[in-house]
Amino acid sequence: MSQDLKTAALEYHEKPRPGKLSVEITKPTQTSRDLSLAYSPGVAEPVREIAKDPENAYRYTGKGNLVGVISDGSAILGLGNLGPLPSKPVMEGKGVLFKRFAGIDVFDIEVDSESPQAFIDTVSRIADTFGGINLEDIKAPECFEVERALKEQCSVPIFHDDQHGTAIVTAAGMLNALDLQGKKVEDAKVVCMGAGAAAIACMKLLISCGIKSENIFMLDSKGVIHSGRDNLNQYKAMFAIDTDARTLDDAMEGADVFLGVSGPDLLPVETLKKMAPNPIVFACSNPDPEIKPEVALTARDDLIMATGRSDYPNQVNNVLGFPFIFRGALDVRASAINEEMKVAAVNAIRDLAKEPVPQEICEAYNVESFEFGKEYILPKPMDVRLLEFVPAAVARAAIDSGVARHGYPAHYPLKALEDVQ
Amino acid sequence: MSQDLKTAALEYHEKPRPGKLSVEITKPTQTSRDLSLAYSPGVAEPVREIAKDPENAYRYTGKGNLVGVISDGSAILGLGNLGPLPSKPVMEGKGVLFKRFAGIDVFDIEVDSESPQAFIDTVSRIADTFGGINLEDIKAPECFEVERALKEQCSVPIFHDDQHGTAIVTAAGMLNALDLQGKKVEDAKVVCMGAGAAAIACMKLLISCGIKSENIFMLDSKGVIHSGRDNLNQYKAMFAIDTDARTLDDAMEGADVFLGVSGPDLLPVETLKKMAPNPIVFACSNPDPEIKPEVALTARDDLIMATGRSDYPNQVNNVLGFPFIFRGALDVRASAINEEMKVAAVNAIRDLAKEPVPQEICEAYNVESFEFGKEYILPKPMDVRLLEFVPAAVARAAIDSGVARHGYPAHYPLKALEDVQ
Repeated sequence: MSQDLKTAALEYHEKPRPGKLSVEITKPTQTSRDLSLAYSPGVAEPVREIAKDPENAYRYTGKGNLVGVISDGSAILGLGNLGPLPSKPVMEGKGVLFKRFAGIDVFDIEVDSESPQAFIDTVSRIADTFGGINLEDIKAPECFEVERALKEQCSVPIFHDDQHGTAIVTAAGMLNALDLQGKKVEDAKVVCMGAGAAAIACMKLLISCGIKSENIFMLDSKGVIHSGRDNLNQYKAMFAIDTDARTLDDAMEGADVFLGVSGPDLLPVETLKKMAPNPIVFACSNPDPEIKPEVALTARDDLIMATGRSDYPNQVNNVLGFPFIFRGALDVRASAINEEMKVAAVNAIRDLAKEPVPQEICEAYNVESFEFGKEYILPKPMDVRLLEFVPAAVARAAIDSGVARHGYPAHYPLKALEDVQ
Repeated sequence: MSQDLKTAALEYHEKPRPGKLSVEITKPTQTSRDLSLAYSPGVAEPVREIAKDPENAYRYTGKGNLVGVISDGSAILGLGNLGPLPSKPVMEGKGVLFKRFAGIDVFDIEVDSESPQAFIDTVSRIADTFGGINLEDIKAPECFEVERALKEQCSVPIFHDDQHGTAIVTAAGMLNALDLQGKKVEDAKVVCMGAGAAAIACMKLLISCGIKSENIFMLDSKGVIHSGRDNLNQYKAMFAIDTDARTLDDAMEGADVFLGVSGPDLLPVETLKKMAPNPIVFACSNPDPEIKPEVALTARDDLIMATGRSDYPNQVNNVLGFPFIFRGALDVRASAINEEMKVAAVNAIRDLAKEPVPQEICEAYNVESFEFGKEYILPKPMDVRLLEFVPAAVARAAIDSGVARHGYPAHYPLKALEDVQ
């Protein structure tokens, strides 16, 4: 990060007043009468209605538009385990993105928990405050058990964005790239460098989208995860395959896809050259990718390349996912964000990338045009049509898979509404 | 509550959109550059600063203006133990009042806890999210232990408003009434009907303000709390006195002050007549007081009367306290709201009641004038000068008593600033 950006970021957070969010009143409060409706004695009436039927909380409180963004600060961005309070600017930033892109209210909660179980207990006890919970920046492998337990215990959707948000956007881009390279999903050989939370979630979702598990070569710091290894936790063990490949070089021989969620400069040019014709490289280590796009594209002009960075084409950015996935889930009061809803989000993002891009969006990025192709496999974050495409698809999948407790909102696009009928 | 008010309250909460609060963005977010400051990669910089020094959370996040309003829903208004979710409209309403009167942001959190210990664990783990915590609608006697433990475990102020907010406003009104009736605090005989959280807090604070504990006759459902009783919990036992009085009638013989925090119509006219000349009656059961003001004032024209209702003079309303007490505590980053700060709030509210009332405030209440006297012992909730008087006094007491971690804000009234130097 440049010194300029550092200084600007601190000033942005500090002035004219600390932070990035405020809580505002949405109803009249000028008169004594107003206040007698907002608080005592009038407020007793919605209290009674909710005591009669908990669903009335969606009618009379902010619950239905409220997401808890919750972290223990154990894996903040790329900065590591700094603890709960230092994670607050990130969680508030997530709140900014939820609001900015999907109109969702966010309370950020930083949890100082001595153990994963303490974190689970805490979040499950406050869960009903919210219409949904976005877990954030929790380290692996603890995050898997935390998410599993909370899904079991809570009646609102639980979504660990570092896993599933990343997976959804990655899968959308990757499947579009496979199409563009003329490769079949069921035949694609995928090398996944990294075996953390994001890597595992990406591979699971790709399997839901048609990639064959026997075609996935996952590598951790000790090399290829294969069935002969005895040093695998249960999450990695799911990806152990029968293979003689041991190193990245072995695995990359004839590979169609490389996904890096590992670290800077870990993919050598020589290794890239071993891939099959028309390969796909997602070098998502941030800010420094596994291989620099200019280096990779010089070595392989048949390549489709994506990174986590906004200054190269094809940015894999979670903001294409989470605001809209929650928007759809909240709008139909989904009790979960299940696999069907994730796949629906993948497909909606893919579809949008194939649509012609309006001039306003191109202008926001100072380019003449965007056209579906090697340098445009994913929509841009500022594309307002995400709010039209993704929530409707997610909501529809929630209804179809039986986790919605509310019908299609009237303001949803007619197309989606017709499809669901 | 009238049917009209019920209908209006439900409509107020439901339309045009559910609830009363929203979370809004306070910084620019139009461009990619803005977003790179609000979130990744720029946000890493405030993260690092807070990791270096936790106090920087007050500089770069909303923590310093953020109060958690937290309940388990075990004693919602006068409605009882309805559970966490039904308490949400009340907690959001509290958020409305915090914002409306003191510009404080509130996250309401409803905790589904199986035990007081679970509640304590939960709140203490999320406490650092906030600059202060307002506990609300937690039943007695559990609320005492909950508050004690949280004060011990948390580095931010913990304030149970049902206890201390009520006590502060009650004490302010009562001390002003004693002045007006020409009674000395140290001689006043006080009867407190009710021995719940609010009653106990009121009596403790009155003792801090000069009332003698041997002059306090507290009654629970079994009559006067005296030293011969063996059925008292530790909180009531503190108020056991040596006396022959057993009934309300016994206690009220020659009493100067009656405080009712019990139930409707529990103070008979005949009992009222036993009080000393120029008595004071605070009948705070809500909405139906221990004795109707018109009945009491007919029986005793030497009386000063207060209730919890807005449709009679002398309303004892917590909103005169909590927004401004927290404003003061937050503005100097107090680590607690201690006895000194509570007494400072009492005195500031008392002082304001003695000031001439500007025309605008009278107009807001459709009266020609308010003048310190039997029918105006407390400021009105819409009195904007509360924000000038109370926070400055509370902040000053925080500094003087050594719990402030930050100096006097520059925008505080010059008078308070001079006093402190």
